Amino acid sequence: MARKNAFYAQSGGVTAVINASAAGVIEAARSSRVIGKVYAGRNGIIGALTEDLIDTSKESRSAIAALKHTPGGAFGSCRYKLKSVDANRREYERLIEVFRAHDIGYFFYNGGGDSADTCLKVSQLAETMGYPIQAIHVPKTVDNDLPITDCSPGFGSVAKYTAVSIREAALDVASMCATSTKVFVMEVMGRHAGWIAAAAGLAQEQEGDAPHIILFPEIAFNKEKFLKKVQQTVKKYGYCVVAVSEGARYKDGTFLADAGTTDAFGHKQLGGVAPVIAQMVRDELALKYHWAVPDYLQRAARHIASGVDVEQAYAVGQAAVAFAEQGKNAVMPAIIRGKGKTFSWTIEEAPLADVANVEKKMPRNFITRDGFGITDEARAYLAPLIQGEPDTPFKNGLPVHARLKLEAVPKKLKGKFEI
Amino acid sequence: MARKNAFYAQSGGVTAVINASAAGVIEAARSSRVIGKVYAGRNGIIGALTEDLIDTSKESRSAIAALKHTPGGAFGSCRYKLKSVDANRREYERLIEVFRAHDIGYFFYNGGGDSADTCLKVSQLAETMGYPIQAIHVPKTVDNDLPITDCSPGFGSVAKYTAVSIREAALDVASMCATSTKVFVMEVMGRHAGWIAAAAGLAQEQEGDAPHIILFPEIAFNKEKFLKKVQQTVKKYGYCVVAVSEGARYKDGTFLADAGTTDAFGHKQLGGVAPVIAQMVRDELALKYHWAVPDYLQRAARHIASGVDVEQAYAVGQAAVAFAEQGKNAVMPAIIRGKGKTFSWTIEEAPLADVANVEKKMPRNFITRDGFGITDEARAYLAPLIQGEPDTPFKNGLPVHARLKLEAVPKKLKGKFEI
Repeated sequence: MARKNAFYAQSGGVTAVINASAAGVIEAARSSRVIGKVYAGRNGIIGALTEDLIDTSKESRSAIAALKHTPGGAFGSCRYKLKSVDANRREYERLIEVFRAHDIGYFFYNGGGDSADTCLKVSQLAETMGYPIQAIHVPKTVDNDLPITDCSPGFGSVAKYTAVSIREAALDVASMCATSTKVFVMEVMGRHAGWIAAAAGLAQEQEGDAPHIILFPEIAFNKEKFLKKVQQTVKKYGYCVVAVSEGARYKDGTFLADAGTTDAFGHKQLGGVAPVIAQMVRDELALKYHWAVPDYLQRAARHIASGVDVEQAYAVGQAAVAFAEQGKNAVMPAIIRGKGKTFSWTIEEAPLADVANVEKKMPRNFITRDGFGITDEARAYLAPLIQGEPDTPFKNGLPVHARLKLEAVPKKLKGKFEI
Repeated sequence: MARKNAFYAQSGGVTAVINASAAGVIEAARSSRVIGKVYAGRNGIIGALTEDLIDTSKESRSAIAALKHTPGGAFGSCRYKLKSVDANRREYERLIEVFRAHDIGYFFYNGGGDSADTCLKVSQLAETMGYPIQAIHVPKTVDNDLPITDCSPGFGSVAKYTAVSIREAALDVASMCATSTKVFVMEVMGRHAGWIAAAAGLAQEQEGDAPHIILFPEIAFNKEKFLKKVQQTVKKYGYCVVAVSEGARYKDGTFLADAGTTDAFGHKQLGGVAPVIAQMVRDELALKYHWAVPDYLQRAARHIASGVDVEQAYAVGQAAVAFAEQGKNAVMPAIIRGKGKTFSWTIEEAPLADVANVEKKMPRNFITRDGFGITDEARAYLAPLIQGEPDTPFKNGLPVHARLKLEAVPKKLKGKFEI
C-alpha cells in the first residue's frame, strides 16, 4: 500500500503544551509505515484552504523534539469554524482539492470542542463527497471542557500556573497587609466554566491559606455576600486573596467584566473583571487593593507547565497516529483515569460524534456550599493534573524554544482561494 | 565581650528573594561569636516600635533554609518611614527603649532607598541619643534604583520573570495573529525608572522577536509615534508585542495610567496603563488587542527566580553580619561587578550616607535612539542578572515554602506605643 501523507493543524486558542502534541504526531508519523510526510497547515485549517502547507519533514529531529518545551502554536493557529457541508460546500470541495493535490489521507486536528466538530465533518468526506480520509481529533483546550477525556491537554499547565502564581502573590500580600494592600484580586481565564478558577484553590493547603474567595461562572455573583466575605476574611487573616473567573456573572447572566464603565466617548471600558471587583472593594469597603490579569501569560507559561500535562499532550499526539495506523476514523484519543488510589491514566478512543459540540461542565459538587471555594472532590480531581516539573532547557537565563524553518510545500494548485 | 542580640527587619515592597537575605543574616548570625539571638520585627520597623519581635532562634534550621526559596516577606514588611530625630524624637526614644530592653546591639535593615535612610538614622543613635548600635543596611528592591551596588537584590528575579513571560506570551500571540489578537500589551512595574521594562527587552534574541516596543518612564510618551510604530510592526511581522512600564508618562509628566476614564460616579477608573494603551490601539488602529497586568505576580515569582539574584540576596545577608562582626556601622554590602569578560561579582562595603536618598537612574544609552527598545549596553548589563535557575523544591506540583512559627519574644515593656 502506498503511503499517504498526513495533514496536521492547530486550532483555536493555543496552550503551553499544544506543540507537545504536534511533536507526538510528527515523531510517531516519522516512524510510521503507512504515513508519508506530515504537512502542517499554516495558521490551522486556513492553511489547508489556502494551500499554505508547511513541510514538517524539513525540520530537524531536534527542532521537533524542542516543540515539547515550546508554548504557543508553532505552525500557527486560527479561530475558524467550518460550516456544514450543506452550508458551505465550496470549502469542503477546496479541502478535497488540496488534499488530493498533496496526496493527503490522514487529517489530524488539534483543538477543542469547535474543532472536534470540524474534524467530524472532515471524517465524513468519504460518505458526503467521496474523498477517502481518516480524521482524528487531537484534544487540546485550557478550558478543560471536552467530554469523555478525563481532562484536556493544556488545562493541567494553566491550572498549575494559576495555583503557583496565586500562592506566591498571596505571600507577598500577607507580608505587606499590616500597612498596605489588604485585598488582592487575580483574574483567570474560563468564560464558560470555572475549571481554571477552581485550580486556584489548589494553592490552599491549610485553613487560612489563599485564595480565600473564588468567584466561579457557575455561581451567580452576589455583591453583598461577596463583600461581606471579604470583610470577614480581612478581619480574620488581615488580608484577602480573590481568584475570579473572567466568566463571573450576575444572576441575570451579565458578565461582571461587561458591567464596567464607559469612557468619555461612550466606549465600553476595556474588559477585565479583576479591576471591576477591585473597584467594588474600594468603593464599598475602602480597603487598599491590587489586582492582576495574567491573560495570555497563563496559557503560555511553559516554564511552569505540569509534567503530567506535557506527557499527556505528547501521548495524545502519538495515540492519534496509532489510531490512524489502525485504520480508525472519526475518533479522538481520550485520557482515561485509572480507578486505583494512585493516579494513573491510559488512552482510549472516543467516537468524535460523542465529543463534538458537547461541553463538559464542572460538577456542582466541586464547589463548596457557600459558592466561594472548592471541595475535596474538586481537589481529588485537580491535584494529579498539576503534578511534575518537566525538563525545560534554559540558555542565558531564558527558556529555549523551537525555531522552526516552516518551509512551505510547493503549491500545486492554480488560483487563490478566498476565505 | 558579652554577645548582643540583633534586630532584623524587612522594609517596603517585598521581592521573590528578600527572604534569602533573611536566611543569609540569620544563618550567619547563628554561627557568629559576637551576635546572640536574631529578633525579627513583625511587619518591619513597626515590630520594633510596638515591641512585637519574633524570636528567630525558635525556628528550625530547615525552616530558615527554606526561606531561600520562599517569596514575600516572611516576617512581615511595611511601608513606614521614620522621620528625622528632630521631627519625631519620640519614635527614636521608643526604638532605644525596645532595643535596650532586648539587649539589641545590631540593626539589620533589609530594604530600598527609603529604608537606607532609616538605617542611616539608626546608625547615628550613638551620637544623637547615646545608644550604641551598629546599623547595617541589607539592599533589596525590584526597582533596582539603589546606588553604588551593581544591582539591587530582587531585581534580577523580576527581570527574569518579565523576559520569560513576555517571550512565552509572544509565541502565543504570534501563532494566533492571522485571525485573532494582533497587539499584546504587558504592563510591568517601575513607577520611576524603566529597569524592569528594559528587562523585557532581553526576550528579544533575533530581529523581529518580541517585545517590539518598550515604553519607558524615561521617554515622554508620544501617542502618534507609538501608534505608527505599532502599525508598522503589525504590517511587518503580523503582530506587535508591547511592554509598558507603569511609570510611562506624557511629556507634561502625567502618568498614562492616570489619564484613564472616570466612572459614572466621577471616580477615577482603577489604574493599569496596559488597558489605556490597549484602548488607544483599538480606538485609533482598530486592531484586536489583549493586555496583561501581572502586578504582584512579577515580584513574587520565586518559581522563576534568577539564580544569580538568589545567590546575591543570600550573600548580602551574610556580608551584613560579617560587617557587623568587624565592628562596622552605617554601611551597606554593595555588589561590585568584576571587570573581566566573564560575569563575576564581589561584595564590598558602601557608606550608607552615599546610599540613602540617592536614586540610581537608568542611563540614557540603555535606550535606543527611537526610545522603543534597549541597546547593547543595556543587554550587557542586564543579561548576567537573570542567569541561573535555582533549586526550587516542589511537593504535589506546587512550590514548597517556609512555614515559620513566628514565635513572639515575651514583651518586657509596659504600655502600648501608638504608631
